[in-house]
Amino acid sequence: MLPILTVFKWSPDGGKGLARDMRVRWALEEVGQPYDVRLVSFAQLKQPEHRTRQPFGQIPAFEEDGLVLFESGAIIHHLAQQHGGLLPADPHARARAVTWMFAAVGTVEPPIVEREQADFTDAGQPWYSKDRLAMLDERIRVRLRDLTRWLGDRDWLEDTFTAGDLMMVLVLRRVDEWLLDEFPTLVAYVRRAEARPAYRRAYAAQAELYSGEPPPEW
Amino acid sequence: MLPILTVFKWSPDGGKGLARDMRVRWALEEVGQPYDVRLVSFAQLKQPEHRTRQPFGQIPAFEEDGLVLFESGAIIHHLAQQHGGLLPADPHARARAVTWMFAAVGTVEPPIVEREQADFTDAGQPWYSKDRLAMLDERIRVRLRDLTRWLGDRDWLEDTFTAGDLMMVLVLRRVDEWLLDEFPTLVAYVRRAEARPAYRRAYAAQAELYSGEPPPEW
Repeated sequence: MLPILTVFKWSPDGGKGLARDMRVRWALEEVGQPYDVRLVSFAQLKQPEHRTRQPFGQIPAFEEDGLVLFESGAIIHHLAQQHGGLLPADPHARARAVTWMFAAVGTVEPPIVEREQADFTDAGQPWYSKDRLAMLDERIRVRLRDLTRWLGDRDWLEDTFTAGDLMMVLVLRRVDEWLLDEFPTLVAYVRRAEARPAYRRAYAAQAELYSGEPPPEW
Repeated sequence: MLPILTVFKWSPDGGKGLARDMRVRWALEEVGQPYDVRLVSFAQLKQPEHRTRQPFGQIPAFEEDGLVLFESGAIIHHLAQQHGGLLPADPHARARAVTWMFAAVGTVEPPIVEREQADFTDAGQPWYSKDRLAMLDERIRVRLRDLTRWLGDRDWLEDTFTAGDLMMVLVLRRVDEWLLDEFPTLVAYVRRAEARPAYRRAYAAQAELYSGEPPPEW
């Protein structure tokens, strides 16, 4: 039995790799592990059956040999226990890579998601304010500056490509062709990652699913 | 040489255990690992020396045997590799516990931090809106409802206390005596964790440091 990855039936990004299953797809491709997908509609996300797999009604979820996991970072961490190629074997290098996995979702992603949500929550509201949106942009730039300073002229966050890069790159892609353009070091970093064959295979798999017309119900 | 935990010279919460070093202090107490602390002022946080340890200019950072880590989740994950008591030995149970570590910082904490920041960023601004703050509160409640539903009548998120509970409880304490009061299941869960001797020792250590008058420069 192949492991099963639960993903959106149709993604609002139309297959641009921004849905969070892309993180797990990429990790699975890096380690060469085939998988099946289970599609859930937006309505199904909030229903009891899906919540047994994902208590917060989100994607992705991952099932393998009776184990059910959610949170992309945790799923990728689990894959790294079974396969080489996602986390270094050396304990110190491994701990550094895990640090970047947490930094991606705990420190760099939240201000980006907040800015994305503002596009929905502010439109037409009395609190709509260009100054507020500019403040949210600046909050993202602070993180991007810090990351630029850290990266310097390295290829990856540490000595080799790790799951920390995988997660950070997919967080940064959320501001690609927008704020990221102000940070050439980060653009080059993202392009370097996107050139990996495993990234391309994962991207193609989700693009095939989500490109074209959305299904009648999603 | 004891490991060194870098913490605020003085915490804005006055020792109520909300600074993120509390997570690591608690984990260190759970495994019985003594440690030293390094104090950094708010000015020092943004200076190059501290950024070599923490690229985003935050606390905590952790140093041990030449290894430097940041992100509370990653530090605790590292401690769990060396000591029992934070993550189960069984691989499936361990993976589930790691899932909750990521859920705490990636899914439950961000809307809480956003609401905390609004108190600073909205006051006196043209975009100040009670309706917006109510929307942010509701975003938190969605997560608290999901978590309540998952917990049901369990003591912990999984079969035993793990680092996933440790991190989730400290995220929930940020809304304690406020939104959390609406969720008795979560209040009981937090109180259960606070009764652990390791929690009490960690709490006492930071309270001793931060109670009383702030130092002249912090």
